[in-house]
Amino acid sequence: MDYFRSAIDRMASYVPGEQPQPGTNVIKLNTNENPYPPSPKVMEALQCLDSEYLRRYPDPFAKEFCQAISDTLGAPADWIIVGNGSDDLLNVLVRACAEGRDRTIAYPTPTYVLYRTLSAMQPASVVEIPYADNFELPVAELIQANAAITFVATPNSPSGHVVPLSQLRELAQGVSGIVVIDEAYVDFAEFSALSLVQEFENVIVLRTLSKGYSLAGLRLGFGVAHPKLLAGLFKVKDSYNVDAIAILVGAAAIRDQAYKEACVEKVKASRATLTTDLKNLGFTVPESHGNFVLATPPARNAESLYLALKQRGIFVRYFKQPGLDDKLRISVGTDKQNQVLVEALARLISGSEPSDRTETVSDELASSKT
Amino acid sequence: MDYFRSAIDRMASYVPGEQPQPGTNVIKLNTNENPYPPSPKVMEALQCLDSEYLRRYPDPFAKEFCQAISDTLGAPADWIIVGNGSDDLLNVLVRACAEGRDRTIAYPTPTYVLYRTLSAMQPASVVEIPYADNFELPVAELIQANAAITFVATPNSPSGHVVPLSQLRELAQGVSGIVVIDEAYVDFAEFSALSLVQEFENVIVLRTLSKGYSLAGLRLGFGVAHPKLLAGLFKVKDSYNVDAIAILVGAAAIRDQAYKEACVEKVKASRATLTTDLKNLGFTVPESHGNFVLATPPARNAESLYLALKQRGIFVRYFKQPGLDDKLRISVGTDKQNQVLVEALARLISGSEPSDRTETVSDELASSKT
Repeated sequence: MDYFRSAIDRMASYVPGEQPQPGTNVIKLNTNENPYPPSPKVMEALQCLDSEYLRRYPDPFAKEFCQAISDTLGAPADWIIVGNGSDDLLNVLVRACAEGRDRTIAYPTPTYVLYRTLSAMQPASVVEIPYADNFELPVAELIQANAAITFVATPNSPSGHVVPLSQLRELAQGVSGIVVIDEAYVDFAEFSALSLVQEFENVIVLRTLSKGYSLAGLRLGFGVAHPKLLAGLFKVKDSYNVDAIAILVGAAAIRDQAYKEACVEKVKASRATLTTDLKNLGFTVPESHGNFVLATPPARNAESLYLALKQRGIFVRYFKQPGLDDKLRISVGTDKQNQVLVEALARLISGSEPSDRTETVSDELASSKT
Repeated sequence: MDYFRSAIDRMASYVPGEQPQPGTNVIKLNTNENPYPPSPKVMEALQCLDSEYLRRYPDPFAKEFCQAISDTLGAPADWIIVGNGSDDLLNVLVRACAEGRDRTIAYPTPTYVLYRTLSAMQPASVVEIPYADNFELPVAELIQANAAITFVATPNSPSGHVVPLSQLRELAQGVSGIVVIDEAYVDFAEFSALSLVQEFENVIVLRTLSKGYSLAGLRLGFGVAHPKLLAGLFKVKDSYNVDAIAILVGAAAIRDQAYKEACVEKVKASRATLTTDLKNLGFTVPESHGNFVLATPPARNAESLYLALKQRGIFVRYFKQPGLDDKLRISVGTDKQNQVLVEALARLISGSEPSDRTETVSDELASSKT
């Protein structure tokens, strides 16, 4: 007998963005981390942690964190499911709802690649509907697919566009399966679809603390939906999927909205400057509502720029796939980091230095000193 | 369309042991937590944690933790897969290997109930083979089942017995699927099956830091197996399944073997005393190699004793299922906690106090002050 199911043998692994080794000095603009540290309240909560929280199993429902979410966002605590990152909840959704050819998964592309990986793993058939150039949601096609799960990321990665509430509403009305609104980047946008969970029993909104709250290392996300929808997901999630530290620290983070908002405002301002600077170099840069931009270089030589930047200790994300292989997804760093990136791109584009030159990032600028 | 797959609608949820609310004073002997706090090195590592570890995504392969395991146990670092608790790895195994009627799951019973839950969720057909009274591994029946995954917990919960290496070896030779040796409780036993991974490509040994290392709240476990076997599991595991704090703190814990061994020795001594005390009350208590005992009360009134103890603030585990419903699984606490339990049982058994009397546990004795 082969060790693995045929779906596993067939599938490709999900490849996350490169995580340079601790101690490497790089300007890391490839996995959309927030350039600012988490709230000081987070570090205080960590310092005060009683060892009893480690010795005992955590609360399977992370109620303390749910209450903090409820107090902050207004959703009832029993409308919340907590995950080991929102990736955990995507996984739970696919496992609970999708299967083979009868219970399919649909989403517009390009979008978060993990949707495809999870579908292949289940396995469940996938209906991928390409976005038009204007990034209008293909509502009619998604409704026609009538999938068991329809994923819509908004703001979407890597495009950075947002989907209007009216289109999400039309979608939720038109399908009988679950609509997953993945709001990983919502903290950097102007509006949220959270209110739709009250209108539609088949809508779940996912959030993460990895981006706006600078807690990618903590693995903490949550979903908000009608308790009837959550019931099946609670069956599938691991009992103790979220650790006791994350529950405490996450509650501290989410209660410190003022700090998060201040970081977000800095990122938005830097995003505007970065967009302008890249446009001045001849890049095409559509408006982004996330903490990243998707930039097409004037000579469309995205791959060679990606490699040349990497040699200079600047990591950006390059997706070698049709529609994206002439673009770079660049996370918004601090103004100084963005400036170093823009200057490096300017030199590379003007041809004033060879693309294979190796450079070192200064300690002050590096974002991965740990 | 129903929201959920039919397998999900049909399955029962896994019900973890009760986790009393923070602030409740109870003697908690129901989920096999270690009664002693984690290593002081763990708390030091937490205090020194740089916020950069939280801001950035963790290492998808938890290499720092793998290196600590490798240095301590001698397994090569690339023979190790790390999970968000060993439950995460059980889940990954089922997802990678089992499916329907052709790729089944087999295990002797009674054992860890999660194996059944995960099989139902997949879904995969299950072959459950009851242990004989002497708890000899039913090797021939398990070989005949030739499942895609054969689970063997050793020490087993709730029985506390260990499976000899010779029988595990016979099993690994006899099946073509994967043999999962679940060593969650191995720190309290006299030997490990870890060496079998070098002999058999189809064997994976799972460990957890929840029991011996007092880190149930952290969610950290690992598996050791041939890289060929790990390759398929790496495809299925979530990229960032283990958070950055767990990687650091877990490495500190596993490097402090002296502390762990000292706690384990105390637990083993307490287990011997508790076993004797319960036997003196007329309980049947087979020898246990875990940090718990499975005790049959003389009048076989396990359920009423469980409820009466709970009213007195003493939590033990009761499984309402054939073969176990006349027994209590009691985690080994501190000597003082065990003594309070034994005294309460003595009074209940002698009938010197009504079983519905409510009592309060003193602060000093309570194990859930947080």
